[in-house]
Amino acid sequence: MSEVLTKCKKAKEISRFLNDLSTNKKNEALLAIQNSLTANEELIILENYKDLLEAKKAGMSESLQDRLAINKARLKAMVDSLKIIIDLADPIGEIIEGWQRPNGLVITKKRVPIGVIAIIYEARPNVTIDAVGLTLKSSNAVVLRGSSSAINSNRALVGVINEALQKIGFPKDTVQLIEDTDRESIKKLVTMNGLIDLVIPRGGAGLIKTVVETATVPCIETGVGNCHIYIDKDAKLEYIIPIVLNSKVQRPSVCNATESLVIHKDIAEKVLPDIINALKEHKVELYGCEVTQQYDQDIKLAKDEDYAMEFLDLKISIIIVDSIDKAIEHITKFGTKHTEAIISENYTTIEKFKNLIDAAAIMVNTSTRFTDGFEFGFGAEMGISTQKMHARGPMGLKELTTYKYIVSGTGQIRS
Amino acid sequence: MSEVLTKCKKAKEISRFLNDLSTNKKNEALLAIQNSLTANEELIILENYKDLLEAKKAGMSESLQDRLAINKARLKAMVDSLKIIIDLADPIGEIIEGWQRPNGLVITKKRVPIGVIAIIYEARPNVTIDAVGLTLKSSNAVVLRGSSSAINSNRALVGVINEALQKIGFPKDTVQLIEDTDRESIKKLVTMNGLIDLVIPRGGAGLIKTVVETATVPCIETGVGNCHIYIDKDAKLEYIIPIVLNSKVQRPSVCNATESLVIHKDIAEKVLPDIINALKEHKVELYGCEVTQQYDQDIKLAKDEDYAMEFLDLKISIIIVDSIDKAIEHITKFGTKHTEAIISENYTTIEKFKNLIDAAAIMVNTSTRFTDGFEFGFGAEMGISTQKMHARGPMGLKELTTYKYIVSGTGQIRS
Repeated sequence: MSEVLTKCKKAKEISRFLNDLSTNKKNEALLAIQNSLTANEELIILENYKDLLEAKKAGMSESLQDRLAINKARLKAMVDSLKIIIDLADPIGEIIEGWQRPNGLVITKKRVPIGVIAIIYEARPNVTIDAVGLTLKSSNAVVLRGSSSAINSNRALVGVINEALQKIGFPKDTVQLIEDTDRESIKKLVTMNGLIDLVIPRGGAGLIKTVVETATVPCIETGVGNCHIYIDKDAKLEYIIPIVLNSKVQRPSVCNATESLVIHKDIAEKVLPDIINALKEHKVELYGCEVTQQYDQDIKLAKDEDYAMEFLDLKISIIIVDSIDKAIEHITKFGTKHTEAIISENYTTIEKFKNLIDAAAIMVNTSTRFTDGFEFGFGAEMGISTQKMHARGPMGLKELTTYKYIVSGTGQIRS
Repeated sequence: MSEVLTKCKKAKEISRFLNDLSTNKKNEALLAIQNSLTANEELIILENYKDLLEAKKAGMSESLQDRLAINKARLKAMVDSLKIIIDLADPIGEIIEGWQRPNGLVITKKRVPIGVIAIIYEARPNVTIDAVGLTLKSSNAVVLRGSSSAINSNRALVGVINEALQKIGFPKDTVQLIEDTDRESIKKLVTMNGLIDLVIPRGGAGLIKTVVETATVPCIETGVGNCHIYIDKDAKLEYIIPIVLNSKVQRPSVCNATESLVIHKDIAEKVLPDIINALKEHKVELYGCEVTQQYDQDIKLAKDEDYAMEFLDLKISIIIVDSIDKAIEHITKFGTKHTEAIISENYTTIEKFKNLIDAAAIMVNTSTRFTDGFEFGFGAEMGISTQKMHARGPMGLKELTTYKYIVSGTGQIRS
């Protein structure tokens, strides 16, 4: 039996154990993991160092190396994120709704775990901790498939977690880590119908595409965000620069950063020079339409592929449009249904934007950076869903659950 | 451009038109369709007759021919089903929840259409009407892919529908029917990422498997129901025969019919002879374990494939078990997560069954036949989901929607 099959079968068993746990026991487990991570700080950082050495040898970029690195402060952040999850309400067992039928049957809709969730991700060891914390609190078994470049870090983290759990009476290997980091193991994992109930890819567009195209188990697409800000002719001037800068430069590498500005022609002359200056001060590279180019000689001509690009970098594309309709058309063509913002004071224009833009989150007069589980008040998140099934936008604990109907009768039969 | 691509693109446009419709306009459209179907009764029945002649020639089974046939009474039933949909509340526009964040942002979660839904189904023309009615009321565009054996019927129905819609100002070809009934067209349809937002297969296990394995767009698995009734040692005797007969023989060809009985050994002797007699009176063929076989010489030995079989016919499998745990184990092994019933008066046993059985619906002391959109009070249904993502169990109008977050600010930026 392959490693993937063995571990998926094991995860299915584990999911039955987790299904029966009380909130108290789950919180006890999260606390045990916290303590164990802190106690094993040295081991974890040492194992992470092995990955970093390999990464350096393999020529991994500085920014990716930075994402991979675990130091004391980052380990503490991981531990703290589990603290937050302990404090969140347990979604499992909630009676979502219930009603009585004319024949006396009582129908109850009860929130239950999904079962086994596979998480496929890249070289970010903090995802390991997020995934374990959120799936455990929502009583789901987890199968982790991290990248080969983080294998030592992940092995250490999962080892420490499983040891802590076993000490308080959990089954051996509660958290399953796929150590086969060959591409083939992803394919195996996402076709484990009957064992895996949901797969969530977390990472770049390439990884997500691979998983979505290969998966035969249900899958939630996350994270690709080609987010726009539409600056309407009726925009409040004082909002523009702060929102544009916050959305673009505060953290350009994340999915809710803005990648493109769409500006109404009637306001362009008034606002564009200041926008360009502000962005250039923050070393943002500019791509624009021909009209935009007239404002600054450093602006490169934007082609369709630039408008379609999720830069994840200090780059931005700009287009000047004739109307709100053209703005909506442009965003519909190039957007990824993640987050789209409008700056306007015009009621009708805002309503149109809210209704016609098809995205997980519509921001009115605020930064695209707010599409985030913490900022929404969910306490934690498992990624931002950019598809429309099951969960849309930030996925917190509730989004990792499903429901079952319980129909209670007294011998009723159907006529 | 292939027919599938052209029609999917058109459907995407249509979905934008539908997104903007008021409830009144949608109900007007449903009424127009009703009237048009009634007015074109003769044409529809004639076109259906062509399909029936072909089906006869091709040697289609009597029961499938029966499913394919449209007569006056059946057309009236279709028209009536649209009447019910008119009376249902419009799910679109509902504010599901909303809250204010400490920084003053107001977050609203609003119910919106999914977009474009593809329905792939077999030779049942009534599905055409159900699909059009439910997707229209939920403001979704629909792409229909029926079977080749119903092509004349579907073409006639869709023609009549589109004519009615165009008369009241809808775009030409609001409802898209894929006329290419080659298998390849299914593959094309379910990989139209970016154009199709959801695919729902409705039909036998073979069709569903094909779609699930081929689809790269989100897909909802429906309808395979290997449903069990567990008769506990503490069952109320008077419930047993009515529930077993209703679940098995009232309509054996549907997914919520019972396919298997799991009987506790301590009650078998008392109840099994009567159950066997009652089932035999209704011409049900019996497959049983060796212990069951001792009760009647006509019982065939049930193999694993019999326990795994969704008969959809007057056949049933029986197994006698030692305990509730063995019953749960058996159901977990062979069930399809559709509907599982328990007959018992024992509180602890019932709670265990409710918690540990993983299915869309758990029936306590009632018939499995109640897992149904109408019986649940949804008014109509688009099938029974047997997976856990997005929708589980009967899918009514709400299950054909998603949501978007609208975040209203006054210039907030993230710190």
